[in-house]
Amino acid sequence: MSLYFSEEHSAETVNARMGADVDPRLKTVMAALVRHLHAFVKEVHLTQAEWEVAIDFLTKTGQICSGERQEYILLSDTLGVSMLVDAINHRRPPGATENTVFGPFHVAGAPERAMGDCISLDGKGERCLFEGRVIDLHGEPIQGARIDVWSDNSEGFYDVQQPGVQPKWNNRGIFTTGADGGYRFIGIKPVSYPIPDDGPVGQMLGHLGRHPFRPAHMHFLVTAPGFQKLVTHTFVGDDKYIGSDTVFGVKQTLVAPFEHVRDGDIVWRSPFDFVLTPAAA
Amino acid sequence: MSLYFSEEHSAETVNARMGADVDPRLKTVMAALVRHLHAFVKEVHLTQAEWEVAIDFLTKTGQICSGERQEYILLSDTLGVSMLVDAINHRRPPGATENTVFGPFHVAGAPERAMGDCISLDGKGERCLFEGRVIDLHGEPIQGARIDVWSDNSEGFYDVQQPGVQPKWNNRGIFTTGADGGYRFIGIKPVSYPIPDDGPVGQMLGHLGRHPFRPAHMHFLVTAPGFQKLVTHTFVGDDKYIGSDTVFGVKQTLVAPFEHVRDGDIVWRSPFDFVLTPAAA
Repeated sequence: MSLYFSEEHSAETVNARMGADVDPRLKTVMAALVRHLHAFVKEVHLTQAEWEVAIDFLTKTGQICSGERQEYILLSDTLGVSMLVDAINHRRPPGATENTVFGPFHVAGAPERAMGDCISLDGKGERCLFEGRVIDLHGEPIQGARIDVWSDNSEGFYDVQQPGVQPKWNNRGIFTTGADGGYRFIGIKPVSYPIPDDGPVGQMLGHLGRHPFRPAHMHFLVTAPGFQKLVTHTFVGDDKYIGSDTVFGVKQTLVAPFEHVRDGDIVWRSPFDFVLTPAAA
Repeated sequence: MSLYFSEEHSAETVNARMGADVDPRLKTVMAALVRHLHAFVKEVHLTQAEWEVAIDFLTKTGQICSGERQEYILLSDTLGVSMLVDAINHRRPPGATENTVFGPFHVAGAPERAMGDCISLDGKGERCLFEGRVIDLHGEPIQGARIDVWSDNSEGFYDVQQPGVQPKWNNRGIFTTGADGGYRFIGIKPVSYPIPDDGPVGQMLGHLGRHPFRPAHMHFLVTAPGFQKLVTHTFVGDDKYIGSDTVFGVKQTLVAPFEHVRDGDIVWRSPFDFVLTPAAA
């Protein structure tokens, strides 16, 4: 193969340029990236004008990022890349609860709560009892599992999106299971909300005929000694966006029941068991 | 196929989300992009930590861009994408002069010069006579061809990189062919230089064991009514970077003779004919 560029051997020419002492994993990743990138350009016969649009889009996507905004994660999310990376790194045995994307709204250090406590502090929304068990693959209860939960409020905003408007730690809390592995807390039935869509990613979604909404969901981060960390949501099945989550976070097994009940001010009940995978699996 | 995400059908799920009224070309390009991007992630089994490095790199590459700096074009250049886009959009018949990358240093409106004029205004470097003809595929001279030329100075900088240091329009000029199609001007034998390597792209090159240099070259933009625009360089064949241009701009047919001569203060002669392709081809 020539040292010089040719359309036919374009990717090989680029990859042959890497040094002998390059980290082997970096070499593997970059060589594959170049091959796929060149294959894409060739397949669609990308025009010069389209290349210019791409350069402009990538530049603007970087430039809108700030301490409070990560547009490249949004881009990764809306192209399904974040879910794909999550999926291939968290393959689970049958019966284990599946992972989904972590999302940008988790905050470490939420208050520890007692079972049965209410995490909704702003008095808004329809109260919902979340309950179930944390169990292993054999159905045995897991004692000492920490369940870190968070959701938006009834207006579709997380507390960190509205500092000074929502009470601190609104719709957040950490619960620890006892010997029966059970958990039980009161929150609200979550509501769907749009991802930030006033930047390049929002424009892209518009051009692609896509909406920016996520279907209503409750976040769970469940950890227990000897088990894999579980990062997941439960979803409200009758949400209008359940089949079109703009970040592709929904999995069939994560759609939870939300049953209408009437128990004081509680109007919904969402039972869901979390099945953890052994750390060694 | 399910509406919900699965590792197996990840790209198809993302692409199925595009609306019915989306511009067909955009649909084709984005669907291919998503397919290739997902194939890349799957092939290398990208880890969560590597994904985070990628997000950070893409963000920083956008954030260093300014009115004077376009790091995403550098990234495209150094991954061979710019040359590939150029190549697939400028396939030429055998015998026609090949294109190469335009580069960021062309400035419109350079002075019109008379044949034989000298474009080197700073008195530095080794003087070189550039001469030849602009001809068609049958070897017939093309009258009225405009030849817009530019190069770095003997220290490896274009005039626009050193405003106030170099004379304005140093090593730039526009020449128009007469009935014989001939051209002739005096410049300097160009020298190799590094692309800006103090940003994310320079760091990437470092990790890949690659240098940031371009081999010495003279830029030519040749236009004539009825012919395709030719954007090209001629390269100095014995440059130490001729086989490792960091932007992959070198093509075998663009390596020009640089003959040592002694004609007054002229010490080099670089003969090269430009063969234009009919606009209809």
